[in-house]
Amino acid sequence: MVKYFRLSSKKVGLSPGDLVFTGSRRVESVQLSSMEYGPSGVVERRYDSADEIAPHPEGATGVQWVDISGLHDLEALRSIGTRFGMHPLALEDVASVGGRPHVTEYEGSLFISLNMLTWTEQEMATAELVSLVLGPNWVLSFQERPGDVFDGVRQRIRGGTARVCSSGPDYLWYALMDAIVDHYFPVLERITQLADGVEERVWSSSAAKADTGLILRLRGEAIEIRRALRPLREEVDSLVRQPPKAIAPSTRPFFSDLRDHVFQLADSLDQVRDTLQAAMEAHVAVVSMRTNEVMKVLTIMASIFIPLTFIVGVYGMNFAFMPELELWWAYPLLWAIMIVIAIIMLLFFRRHDWL
Amino acid sequence: MVKYFRLSSKKVGLSPGDLVFTGSRRVESVQLSSMEYGPSGVVERRYDSADEIAPHPEGATGVQWVDISGLHDLEALRSIGTRFGMHPLALEDVASVGGRPHVTEYEGSLFISLNMLTWTEQEMATAELVSLVLGPNWVLSFQERPGDVFDGVRQRIRGGTARVCSSGPDYLWYALMDAIVDHYFPVLERITQLADGVEERVWSSSAAKADTGLILRLRGEAIEIRRALRPLREEVDSLVRQPPKAIAPSTRPFFSDLRDHVFQLADSLDQVRDTLQAAMEAHVAVVSMRTNEVMKVLTIMASIFIPLTFIVGVYGMNFAFMPELELWWAYPLLWAIMIVIAIIMLLFFRRHDWL
Amino acid sequence: MVKYFRLSSKKVGLSPGDLVFTGSRRVESVQLSSMEYGPSGVVERRYDSADEIAPHPEGATGVQWVDISGLHDLEALRSIGTRFGMHPLALEDVASVGGRPHVTEYEGSLFISLNMLTWTEQEMATAELVSLVLGPNWVLSFQERPGDVFDGVRQRIRGGTARVCSSGPDYLWYALMDAIVDHYFPVLERITQLADGVEERVWSSSAAKADTGLILRLRGEAIEIRRALRPLREEVDSLVRQPPKAIAPSTRPFFSDLRDHVFQLADSLDQVRDTLQAAMEAHVAVVSMRTNEVMKVLTIMASIFIPLTFIVGVYGMNFAFMPELELWWAYPLLWAIMIVIAIIMLLFFRRHDWL
Amino acid sequence: MVKYFRLSSKKVGLSPGDLVFTGSRRVESVQLSSMEYGPSGVVERRYDSADEIAPHPEGATGVQWVDISGLHDLEALRSIGTRFGMHPLALEDVASVGGRPHVTEYEGSLFISLNMLTWTEQEMATAELVSLVLGPNWVLSFQERPGDVFDGVRQRIRGGTARVCSSGPDYLWYALMDAIVDHYFPVLERITQLADGVEERVWSSSAAKADTGLILRLRGEAIEIRRALRPLREEVDSLVRQPPKAIAPSTRPFFSDLRDHVFQLADSLDQVRDTLQAAMEAHVAVVSMRTNEVMKVLTIMASIFIPLTFIVGVYGMNFAFMPELELWWAYPLLWAIMIVIAIIMLLFFRRHDWL
Amino acid sequence: MVKYFRLSSKKVGLSPGDLVFTGSRRVESVQLSSMEYGPSGVVERRYDSADEIAPHPEGATGVQWVDISGLHDLEALRSIGTRFGMHPLALEDVASVGGRPHVTEYEGSLFISLNMLTWTEQEMATAELVSLVLGPNWVLSFQERPGDVFDGVRQRIRGGTARVCSSGPDYLWYALMDAIVDHYFPVLERITQLADGVEERVWSSSAAKADTGLILRLRGEAIEIRRALRPLREEVDSLVRQPPKAIAPSTRPFFSDLRDHVFQLADSLDQVRDTLQAAMEAHVAVVSMRTNEVMKVLTIMASIFIPLTFIVGVYGMNFAFMPELELWWAYPLLWAIMIVIAIIMLLFFRRHDWL
Repeated sequence: MVKYFRLSSKKVGLSPGDLVFTGSRRVESVQLSSMEYGPSGVVERRYDSADEIAPHPEGATGVQWVDISGLHDLEALRSIGTRFGMHPLALEDVASVGGRPHVTEYEGSLFISLNMLTWTEQEMATAELVSLVLGPNWVLSFQERPGDVFDGVRQRIRGGTARVCSSGPDYLWYALMDAIVDHYFPVLERITQLADGVEERVWSSSAAKADTGLILRLRGEAIEIRRALRPLREEVDSLVRQPPKAIAPSTRPFFSDLRDHVFQLADSLDQVRDTLQAAMEAHVAVVSMRTNEVMKVLTIMASIFIPLTFIVGVYGMNFAFMPELELWWAYPLLWAIMIVIAIIMLLFFRRHDWL
Repeated sequence: MVKYFRLSSKKVGLSPGDLVFTGSRRVESVQLSSMEYGPSGVVERRYDSADEIAPHPEGATGVQWVDISGLHDLEALRSIGTRFGMHPLALEDVASVGGRPHVTEYEGSLFISLNMLTWTEQEMATAELVSLVLGPNWVLSFQERPGDVFDGVRQRIRGGTARVCSSGPDYLWYALMDAIVDHYFPVLERITQLADGVEERVWSSSAAKADTGLILRLRGEAIEIRRALRPLREEVDSLVRQPPKAIAPSTRPFFSDLRDHVFQLADSLDQVRDTLQAAMEAHVAVVSMRTNEVMKVLTIMASIFIPLTFIVGVYGMNFAFMPELELWWAYPLLWAIMIVIAIIMLLFFRRHDWL
Repeated sequence: MVKYFRLSSKKVGLSPGDLVFTGSRRVESVQLSSMEYGPSGVVERRYDSADEIAPHPEGATGVQWVDISGLHDLEALRSIGTRFGMHPLALEDVASVGGRPHVTEYEGSLFISLNMLTWTEQEMATAELVSLVLGPNWVLSFQERPGDVFDGVRQRIRGGTARVCSSGPDYLWYALMDAIVDHYFPVLERITQLADGVEERVWSSSAAKADTGLILRLRGEAIEIRRALRPLREEVDSLVRQPPKAIAPSTRPFFSDLRDHVFQLADSLDQVRDTLQAAMEAHVAVVSMRTNEVMKVLTIMASIFIPLTFIVGVYGMNFAFMPELELWWAYPLLWAIMIVIAIIMLLFFRRHDWL
Repeated sequence: MVKYFRLSSKKVGLSPGDLVFTGSRRVESVQLSSMEYGPSGVVERRYDSADEIAPHPEGATGVQWVDISGLHDLEALRSIGTRFGMHPLALEDVASVGGRPHVTEYEGSLFISLNMLTWTEQEMATAELVSLVLGPNWVLSFQERPGDVFDGVRQRIRGGTARVCSSGPDYLWYALMDAIVDHYFPVLERITQLADGVEERVWSSSAAKADTGLILRLRGEAIEIRRALRPLREEVDSLVRQPPKAIAPSTRPFFSDLRDHVFQLADSLDQVRDTLQAAMEAHVAVVSMRTNEVMKVLTIMASIFIPLTFIVGVYGMNFAFMPELELWWAYPLLWAIMIVIAIIMLLFFRRHDWL
Repeated sequence: MVKYFRLSSKKVGLSPGDLVFTGSRRVESVQLSSMEYGPSGVVERRYDSADEIAPHPEGATGVQWVDISGLHDLEALRSIGTRFGMHPLALEDVASVGGRPHVTEYEGSLFISLNMLTWTEQEMATAELVSLVLGPNWVLSFQERPGDVFDGVRQRIRGGTARVCSSGPDYLWYALMDAIVDHYFPVLERITQLADGVEERVWSSSAAKADTGLILRLRGEAIEIRRALRPLREEVDSLVRQPPKAIAPSTRPFFSDLRDHVFQLADSLDQVRDTLQAAMEAHVAVVSMRTNEVMKVLTIMASIFIPLTFIVGVYGMNFAFMPELELWWAYPLLWAIMIVIAIIMLLFFRRHDWL
């Protein structure tokens, strides 16, 4: 199981706002690109260094979207932070991989950090930190490594006809969040499938131990995902209840829609947990019933044959004076007695519903 | 178990508002019908194509109710959405089968999506998405397949004397919700019966495994239904607490009544879960007590006869010099000793309350 | 166990406000009586038909209390509803036995439905629906069957000196609720006694199965009662927090007192559930410890005698050449060896604390 | 276990405000005493009858504190209630032993009832009802029996220099509550010690059954104490959040302090419950592991010797034609075979980690 | 396990505000030091006695930070309390080791008490009380023993360039809290590692008992830490929601950041508990499955050989007339029969999936 949400003690003793990258480097060098779009069309750029990026001038029309992939280069982060006037705490959060999803409103910008979720080929969930900053006419997106999660948004911008092209930066900010939240669906879909499968197999006698292990692993995954999802739910909910001024009224219904998606994901997670809980309990009950079955077989076998073995042992003794040994009808009589005893035992067990 | 509330990854990467039908097609072709009623009587129509439907002109008296059965024809949905001025997000939700029940207030319309619940002949609950849109003088209803759930409302409209005939579209909107919520009652009634039955059978020794399976299945059903019911409860509660302007004051008590029904259903669901939980725990306790009984029988049989078998084994040995074998009273004495040992064991077990 | 709070599917497809009696008829014919009291004294009346009852004229001094026992006669209910101007939904709730306790404020009247609880001779709780309607100068009380629950109130009115005689209808409304809530006390007292008894008996070895059954039954009773009590607690709490205008300021402290009683009952119910939960867990632990004890006895007996039985079996063999059989000291030596083996086993078990 | 918080059915059918003493008489006769203190010094008095007590005249300086020990004399209570103008419901609550702690604000007085907790020599918690009434310049305290709980406050008043001497009656009211809450600390301290002890002993094999009993008993105590503490926490919290006018601003920080104490006690109680829960679960796990150990020993012994016993049984048969019996090397060969079988079994068990 | 949060009964019967040191003395003598910093530089001082400390004059520029290490010298505490005008209740809380973290706003000062957490070499968490008082231009910090937790803050002040140097006392107050909260991270990191390790080892058969003990111990640690963390979370959250006037708007984002850290810690704690819970349940399931395995082996061995042993016992009997003993083909036939019986048993067990 990948343990993503683990606390880091790297930052103990540092001043608040000090930049530390608490993750593990996932990309060779930082990749910087920007898109500028508006009534006059779309311009895409790639940069070699953070110092080349100039923020969109205030009052300019159109929206500037700068995407930064790779968070280990603190110099680059600092440079971008200074150019776009980001609050030191926001910049610190960008590099604090493993932190808690949260929205913060700074003067002149709106900051959200949330987690990308991917399902690996090893059937495990991995998380990745993404931060999105909304400025007056620009949006910054920070990712741990370049990925194709925002490609759908890029295509729509290039297309030129989608709603995003004619909307402000707040809609872009929403669209990026929506793209990330959309990626939770296949992950939870897969976990739900696995959990449903375990639940169905609980009655079959094969692979009991493997399934207990799978239940434990899926519970672990669900706990990890809940750590990403629960605070996200609160934060998106507060965006809907008390929308910041930076979000235009026409964009607000889209945040309601996003909230519904996040709630739906959280519901699915609850359902997975309930399913796993029920499967675990059923599994324990099944094992306990099976042990009961096993014990019954043992007890029936032992209860019938142990007394009989005692009886035949008696007449295997070598005492000089055992008068019954000499009688010709003693042997068949003993067989009759033993058969009667066995039948009585069987009737006893049948009456107690053991057979 | 039918797994209705499963996430769909069909929509990943699409733009918000893009129409995707996430369910499985349940009807051959879309069925369109409308009812117009008011002081001047009732007019019913059937349409072959969505393009034939014209929304009630603004300011016209009377109420127009358009019912659309079948959600897979996205062209038809789009046409209706455009004609009635529905928000793209509302239209998206209409086709998002498996989504979360929710109420959204758009400019000029009030949207609710909720779930129809049916109890199949296979003793399972199945769900179906229904969306209801309330406009200035019209109501749209979208269902996955044509059903008789709204027939009661239709009859009352045709009758011409019921409250619905003299009320506005908000009452019709309520009446359709009420008809759907009413259909939850027999489903929960049946589940409650099954759960009560399991609870009563927990003491009988027969069919233990089948009942554990039934408990697991009913818990699964309860989890599915809770997914439909819990968000519905929140949404209806908020309709009562903060009634939208579109709902006239005279209609509000009816929403309170609806809320009471939904709360009552949720109470029943909680009760089912408690009953199943108690039955499961009792079942595990019963199995454990039975294993204890079985072990006692085994232990009593074994503890009495194993020492005796050892003793008779001793005198079955073929040593040349075993002086006691020659004594004429040795054999009866041994019997006496063995009977005493058996009695001592029995007394020991009685003192420990095993007999 | 009496299952009172069961959903009824009788009402599916009906119009809201349609009267249906969802209970089972408990009384031959409806009994109607009224009390009118005020500064000028008390007048009691009995009616043969609902049509004879005339509501107290508006502006008249004194309070009119009409009691209706028996809810199956829907004609009578409709007649009373019309005469006293009750809202159709309130009238519907009067007949909806098994519904959820709730308070609703209609224009000109305040409606509460709640449940009477009785403890039967079969040591079971049974519930009964009671509805109380508070009008400008009258109070209506609807019960499933005539009972003596309101007799205390009647006596106080007849006495002429109690606070109820000099107060308005709101105090009467309160007094009737108080009389019903008072009847919960002996029921919960009895359940608490039974639960305490089970808890104390959990260590004694007798009647284990009966007690598990009792725990299960009491849990069922507690679940039923909670269904009556939990919504009642919410409703009475909201009456105290946001007192309706119909309740005079001087009557409000009495509702606070009532709320304290309901909270106290709910606390008791929680305590019963905790006690039963603890008893159940202790019971399972005890059974498991006992199984452990049983296994120890079996294992000790078997472990000592099985090897010894093997040894004596060896010398019971009939091989022609078993030299040790001929030695005169072989038999006593074997006894010595066997005793040593037994002692070693006993020491082993003592070291493992099994003895 | 002392069951203090048990419902009483003594009051069923009575009018609200009717005085009933629901406890058991704990003191011979009611003891009445008062202290009057202020700038002019301290005056202490004892009374033989409630009729001798005169309330402090309105407008007089100084504070009057009247202490009543013994609640069974309803005449005395009524007399005091009339003299000090107490609300009938407040007076009823004074005598309602076993009731729920609560604060009520009446016109001109502030009423609180709460519970004294004592730890008896039998290692049990016992509770006692105390009611405190705060008037304009007097405070009434009602206890079930005279105790030394208020002695600390008395000493401070007599001393003449403590804050209580120069403060108003609201501070005295607080000081009495504080004295009672302080007495919870040693009780919870002792329960925590006992729970910690049980948790530490869970691994030792001795006294398992006694400890399960202790866990059950401590859980019972915790449930009883929680019944006193949980409502008290709510009531004190509401005193801090919405301080009544009768409490001067300078006294409010003391109520915050009191609230912190009550919260700390509630935290301790939660911790005790968690500790007991963990100990119980660990105990069950330990018993289950031990049963597993016992079974292993039995299975190893039985699996090795049962086949061997069968083999020697074979050669104990008396068939006329068993050729192997005549061979001289058959007997040693059989020993060799049996030893090999035993070794194979041991290796099998070692491979399965049973040894 | 170190039990830090244990209630102390030392204070029973004392007046509120009376100073008692409820901890155990951890340092020889109280250590007093101060730092004064501002535009004019930094001045550090050490004091031998509390009487030497003079509070910063009102209106003076710069910030004074007085650090007191060692809480057992109540005289010193009283002297400092008087000089800085601390409320008696705040002073009492400073010495109340083991108390509940809380924030209180007094006139002219803001008080917080919280807990330092350290992870000892014995792999245990220990706590320590720290109180921080924020005045107009000074900050007091009280610790149980001198430590290096504030060294990072001291270095930053000495450096002269950090944000703390140019900010007011509210930022220093925050920085000290932040330094303490930062020290929770390595502790929870270590506990999470241990819990993850236990979870991974649950399938291996070794050290089962040791791991159950570790689970129990870690649960205990988590309960202790939760007692420090849960109230801290509430208090810091309320500082963010309703910031006191003493905290400048520019400092408020830092408190939001601190709150995020505390929430993250609380999330981690929840995760640890879930992990331990899952590990415990899996462990019990594994033990139960293993017992089932053991029973199967026993039952198979016993069921096959017990009947066979009976059969060979039969022909070991010494009856005079057992005709089959004389037949030459009886012995091989018996072997054949016994082998058939054994095979039938094996097939039976295979069909039941026991092999």
